[in-house]
Amino acid sequence: MPSSEFQLLSSILENKGKSVSDILSKISAFQIAVPSWALGAGGTRFGRFSIGGEPRNLEEKLEDIGLLAKLTKKTDAVSLHIPWDIPEDVEAIKQKAQSLEISFDAMNSNTFQDYGQDLTYKMGSLSNSDSTIRQQAVDHNKQVIEIGKSLGSKGLTVWLADGSNFPGQASIRKALQWTYESLQAIYKDLPSDWKLLLEYKPYEPNFYHTVIPDWGTSSFLCKQLGDQAKVLVDLGHHLPNTNIEQIVATLMHQDMLAGFHFNDSKYGDDDLSTGSIKPYQLFLIFCELIGGAEDGAQAWESISWMIDASHNTKDPLEDLIQALEAIAIAYAKALLVDREKLTQCQMSGDTVGAQEILQDAFLTDVRPLVKEARLQSGGVESPLDYYRTEKIREKLISQRGKNSQATGL
Amino acid sequence: MPSSEFQLLSSILENKGKSVSDILSKISAFQIAVPSWALGAGGTRFGRFSIGGEPRNLEEKLEDIGLLAKLTKKTDAVSLHIPWDIPEDVEAIKQKAQSLEISFDAMNSNTFQDYGQDLTYKMGSLSNSDSTIRQQAVDHNKQVIEIGKSLGSKGLTVWLADGSNFPGQASIRKALQWTYESLQAIYKDLPSDWKLLLEYKPYEPNFYHTVIPDWGTSSFLCKQLGDQAKVLVDLGHHLPNTNIEQIVATLMHQDMLAGFHFNDSKYGDDDLSTGSIKPYQLFLIFCELIGGAEDGAQAWESISWMIDASHNTKDPLEDLIQALEAIAIAYAKALLVDREKLTQCQMSGDTVGAQEILQDAFLTDVRPLVKEARLQSGGVESPLDYYRTEKIREKLISQRGKNSQATGL
Amino acid sequence: MPSSEFQLLSSILENKGKSVSDILSKISAFQIAVPSWALGAGGTRFGRFSIGGEPRNLEEKLEDIGLLAKLTKKTDAVSLHIPWDIPEDVEAIKQKAQSLEISFDAMNSNTFQDYGQDLTYKMGSLSNSDSTIRQQAVDHNKQVIEIGKSLGSKGLTVWLADGSNFPGQASIRKALQWTYESLQAIYKDLPSDWKLLLEYKPYEPNFYHTVIPDWGTSSFLCKQLGDQAKVLVDLGHHLPNTNIEQIVATLMHQDMLAGFHFNDSKYGDDDLSTGSIKPYQLFLIFCELIGGAEDGAQAWESISWMIDASHNTKDPLEDLIQALEAIAIAYAKALLVDREKLTQCQMSGDTVGAQEILQDAFLTDVRPLVKEARLQSGGVESPLDYYRTEKIREKLISQRGKNSQATGL
Amino acid sequence: MPSSEFQLLSSILENKGKSVSDILSKISAFQIAVPSWALGAGGTRFGRFSIGGEPRNLEEKLEDIGLLAKLTKKTDAVSLHIPWDIPEDVEAIKQKAQSLEISFDAMNSNTFQDYGQDLTYKMGSLSNSDSTIRQQAVDHNKQVIEIGKSLGSKGLTVWLADGSNFPGQASIRKALQWTYESLQAIYKDLPSDWKLLLEYKPYEPNFYHTVIPDWGTSSFLCKQLGDQAKVLVDLGHHLPNTNIEQIVATLMHQDMLAGFHFNDSKYGDDDLSTGSIKPYQLFLIFCELIGGAEDGAQAWESISWMIDASHNTKDPLEDLIQALEAIAIAYAKALLVDREKLTQCQMSGDTVGAQEILQDAFLTDVRPLVKEARLQSGGVESPLDYYRTEKIREKLISQRGKNSQATGL
Repeated sequence: MPSSEFQLLSSILENKGKSVSDILSKISAFQIAVPSWALGAGGTRFGRFSIGGEPRNLEEKLEDIGLLAKLTKKTDAVSLHIPWDIPEDVEAIKQKAQSLEISFDAMNSNTFQDYGQDLTYKMGSLSNSDSTIRQQAVDHNKQVIEIGKSLGSKGLTVWLADGSNFPGQASIRKALQWTYESLQAIYKDLPSDWKLLLEYKPYEPNFYHTVIPDWGTSSFLCKQLGDQAKVLVDLGHHLPNTNIEQIVATLMHQDMLAGFHFNDSKYGDDDLSTGSIKPYQLFLIFCELIGGAEDGAQAWESISWMIDASHNTKDPLEDLIQALEAIAIAYAKALLVDREKLTQCQMSGDTVGAQEILQDAFLTDVRPLVKEARLQSGGVESPLDYYRTEKIREKLISQRGKNSQATGL
Repeated sequence: MPSSEFQLLSSILENKGKSVSDILSKISAFQIAVPSWALGAGGTRFGRFSIGGEPRNLEEKLEDIGLLAKLTKKTDAVSLHIPWDIPEDVEAIKQKAQSLEISFDAMNSNTFQDYGQDLTYKMGSLSNSDSTIRQQAVDHNKQVIEIGKSLGSKGLTVWLADGSNFPGQASIRKALQWTYESLQAIYKDLPSDWKLLLEYKPYEPNFYHTVIPDWGTSSFLCKQLGDQAKVLVDLGHHLPNTNIEQIVATLMHQDMLAGFHFNDSKYGDDDLSTGSIKPYQLFLIFCELIGGAEDGAQAWESISWMIDASHNTKDPLEDLIQALEAIAIAYAKALLVDREKLTQCQMSGDTVGAQEILQDAFLTDVRPLVKEARLQSGGVESPLDYYRTEKIREKLISQRGKNSQATGL
Repeated sequence: MPSSEFQLLSSILENKGKSVSDILSKISAFQIAVPSWALGAGGTRFGRFSIGGEPRNLEEKLEDIGLLAKLTKKTDAVSLHIPWDIPEDVEAIKQKAQSLEISFDAMNSNTFQDYGQDLTYKMGSLSNSDSTIRQQAVDHNKQVIEIGKSLGSKGLTVWLADGSNFPGQASIRKALQWTYESLQAIYKDLPSDWKLLLEYKPYEPNFYHTVIPDWGTSSFLCKQLGDQAKVLVDLGHHLPNTNIEQIVATLMHQDMLAGFHFNDSKYGDDDLSTGSIKPYQLFLIFCELIGGAEDGAQAWESISWMIDASHNTKDPLEDLIQALEAIAIAYAKALLVDREKLTQCQMSGDTVGAQEILQDAFLTDVRPLVKEARLQSGGVESPLDYYRTEKIREKLISQRGKNSQATGL
Repeated sequence: MPSSEFQLLSSILENKGKSVSDILSKISAFQIAVPSWALGAGGTRFGRFSIGGEPRNLEEKLEDIGLLAKLTKKTDAVSLHIPWDIPEDVEAIKQKAQSLEISFDAMNSNTFQDYGQDLTYKMGSLSNSDSTIRQQAVDHNKQVIEIGKSLGSKGLTVWLADGSNFPGQASIRKALQWTYESLQAIYKDLPSDWKLLLEYKPYEPNFYHTVIPDWGTSSFLCKQLGDQAKVLVDLGHHLPNTNIEQIVATLMHQDMLAGFHFNDSKYGDDDLSTGSIKPYQLFLIFCELIGGAEDGAQAWESISWMIDASHNTKDPLEDLIQALEAIAIAYAKALLVDREKLTQCQMSGDTVGAQEILQDAFLTDVRPLVKEARLQSGGVESPLDYYRTEKIREKLISQRGKNSQATGL
């Protein structure tokens, strides 16, 4: 039986003319992919502290995500990273995933590290001044597409870490041009029903200049590449004080938003749990997303959703449960915004009224809605309580060992 | 007779294969416009402190710039601001300017203040939700073009202060679309030999969202408008830590750089004197400019140069002398960069060598070159010393009064 | 009769062991001062847009605050600014205030503008290199104390705008020493039951160096001055990404927190409405305040509360209503934190659990509590609805005129 | 024979009343320590690229620094890091160092990583909520002091990485208090002729709160500890836009500056080569240092100097050569400032004149002075040319191997 909180909130919302069942079905339908590298402990350049029971291979990563899916009903896909997740037996992996009701989200290539390939990426990959190295990086991306095709993925995410640490080190214009040419070569191999998600980031691991530092550069490259290339927004990849919700709106205005990497940050690319630092910003982003879709700027279905956080001091599975819940909450709140009245305020210059409308939605406690949607979908009442009560980490440690280490950063 | 410093530096440079006469003629040819509003004391929202002897009308503004031109030989144009500088007698103003060897650089429109027009710009101008207000702002810009045509200007600079102070106040996508439509209407009236310089700024006077906050948005609008619209870079209009020289290179790569507003800043749009805070950044910007032009990305002649600073605690004329000198110095240093060797370092991954090449140019004391170029052009040995020795501010005060106030901010 | 939302929330909280009556009385007791300059439209250096009906004198300012007090029951004091608010008839003003149940919060001095005093503050006041100017600024502060004494104020707030715009302009160490000596001279005249609230700000109106830029410098000066001097925190006066709640905790740890200037910001000292941009940060600040007081670090009663925002595009009275509500909401949420469980999580390294506890409080919709507290105190159900339904701005305009302008920025 | 550049510069300086021999001896006397961890390739959390020929043990680290000392004559000390540099044979190491004319600068403790100690530092060390872990961290620091004593070091540098990643994780006040108590226990063991250098850093590796985030907190702790504890400034450890030279001046004003970690940054703690990004800031810092010492605020000799950079894409030895040169250049330029005239400008409010004085020094090409000082001290004409011509890296690789890896990050 629904809780009294849910019943009261439902009657309030219905009185305001909102359809609670519609809201519930939207919340239920919203699914966020989890990357394979989020299941182990993260670290910083200063060190890494193990969590224990980390998945030792791709099968165990899928099992972890399967558990998240079962408990939360907010994720149904994994985003693989090559070379960390090259499947030895594609069919076995596909069956494993199917049995867990997990599909394969966008594939991620890696040209920011050396992992035994012939030529070093120390001075760059797709933007390298050496055409042989550029070709190697292009080939790697093509291989990632091939693996993705075999698994049923429909997207390739390119995060290009290339750049320079010191003025003069790189020719900024040449690096940009070479990057374009490399991407063009990759894009040629992109299946016609795939998407190329091009990420941007202002700094780290390079500290003077990054080849694709902002949405403008990513968008410039995508428009040259073609309709299947769009801009990927990672929340932590912005200079201080950036208005990220405006970037989202601006990209949707151009039908150029590929999707999201959710996380949160206070200083830089901190990769903290979504919603843990700036929950109002997350809500405002969802307001723009819903608005852009409802106004027909860009279709909701064309946008990809993924968590991309690092877990230095939290159990990764607990953190992912918190992140999935925080995203659902922000989305549910944004669904409550009275967009018609908001438009009236905007047209009449009623700044105070507009703020009231947003705040009214944000201040509403939507947890009863999120929980009801989860229960209706077959999830558990409280995924975090369940995880702790069932001592799942302890079980994973006993199965996988204290010192198992997942591939990743 | 050239100084011994100049002679020694010349011989060093010639030994390195540099043509000193070529460098001198480039320095001499480089001219930076001064805006009419830079000649009075600036202020902040907290107050303004008068300087005395400020120009009381357009004629006196021209006289001040004429003086700067005569002493420094680094400026030969004024950038007017409408409605502050509407000429009462166009012919008289043209003759006055001609007699001072001053031409008319890009015209500036003002839709960020109310100055007696019918409808208020409180809630925006080109992006206003009210089409009547948008039309008024468009008409104002068309009037500015007309005035500019009568004076021989060849450009319209649009700084759009529009935006919002609070989430929800504005529809970000609609504001962008209305802005585009307004600009399109203005662009239709742009003479075919004119340029539209579209400025961007992340915040101030609006503090939540600005309609054109970054180069990406400005570039997006310009590309929709047509070839005559390009992106104007104001050094102070960037979020913390932005790599501005990269933006310059990226714009030149697309032939999209309209020009510059020179100033310097430590925190935000501080409007401090160019070169007073981050002289190495200014040098790196000139390295990109010279490189972009030499490599054929964008023609040097297509770029506009203007100072845009505010003088809260300095005599504006003294400040402009310092700024013009600082720009000349940064440019001269960038001219010394051994671009061939730099390219070799970039191609071979020699980061240390690349840094040495830039540092070698930056560390060179180029003041003898700048002075020699000025003297050869007919300027004075030291403009600042001349200004002080001749007690020019005192003379201006006695002519114009202690409390004269130039139009401006 | 209390709303069903209030009843349900009450029963939930009581089940968790919280005393709702205790929470309500704390919310009711919490009162925030309003500064006299917040009642008119603010502006930026680029312009100001009138609101109409602004108070024309101190009496009308008191009336505006009296109205806020009556509607919201969240303010009962005004913070005056000298010279803007020098009372002509002290007794009359005191009676007026008493009749409106308004008392006089901390007094504010002004040495950042010229308003007819003998010597200019252009190059600084308490830190000026000219001892005569320093003396003038000291004397002004002493005069402010005298006026405050006559009105019953118990505090002097010093915001020192002094600093420099360019490297070299000021001797940083001498300016600091002179500031100390000036403050010492003021402190000598401070009545023994007064507090000196010393504000800090990193930049603006000076753009290279500010004499008191951070809490460390303010604290250093206060400790030299004596026990009555403490550090004032203005939320907008911090560099990007500053952890303000940590500063609050650190100051309380030393019993050095004078109080707050509430506002919100996205970029700098934007002076936006409290809670409109970063409501979670405001909540975290209140968590530290409550924690610091409950743990005995610093007494709650020793802390001063004031709003300090600027209203460029909002009706100031509407904005103040929103701000008072936002502060009450943040405070009420922080009161719900289960501090005992939080401490357990902190002691056991349960990061996930600690986040859950904070989020549980933050996600709770406390508006029923805030409304109930207001109604019990005699306020209206919805101050903003009342203000609009009663057409108060229209009435003020008809009384005071369309173009009345309050003193202030 | 001195170069003609040196001769001309000398005569110019002498004409201005400067003693060139005095300047040369100051430059020669200025020595900067090199940390043992700077000799291998650095990395980021995303990866690390080997350089080859890295020192495999403490002896080889000393040899690398000995080489730097011989070539540059700008370093004569190593700063060791425990546990990375625990000497197996103290006497042998001392003799090795002596033979290379290298002494032992401040010792560095490490409580930010797990390296086999009993209890993990995952949730903090000196600030840990578990007193047993705090004691372990205290004991480690005491051990570091013992090792330092045996080698003749006179300082302990404490960089405390402790903090939290999420709101609520840590009690900010308790963590501060525990840190104080832990430091107090360490301080008790500090020999009376030692210094405790307490570093601060706003974020990384913790991303929500750092226990010692700013100079104010470090200074607060040091003042509680005693006269031997002072604040260490690392250039990269500041929030965006911080005025670091002001912090230096403020600390010297209180005789609280322990010393420096030199590096440079564009975004955060980028650990780039000193002087490679903001050379004017470095010059301004030296202006404050020289001014503070000359005015008697704090003795020059009481300040420690060390490089602390990371070499991700440069040969570490080449980078250190560049850094030592950049520091010498900044120092030499600051020595040229006409401090008497600067003071006159400051006293008379001549902002323009003050800027001219600083710029005159900064624009002067002081490389002839730095080279002359190096040659007079027995160094080589160009350390970088020598290093490359002599193919030193190649020799190191052949001796130590392609894949040797120095201990460090």
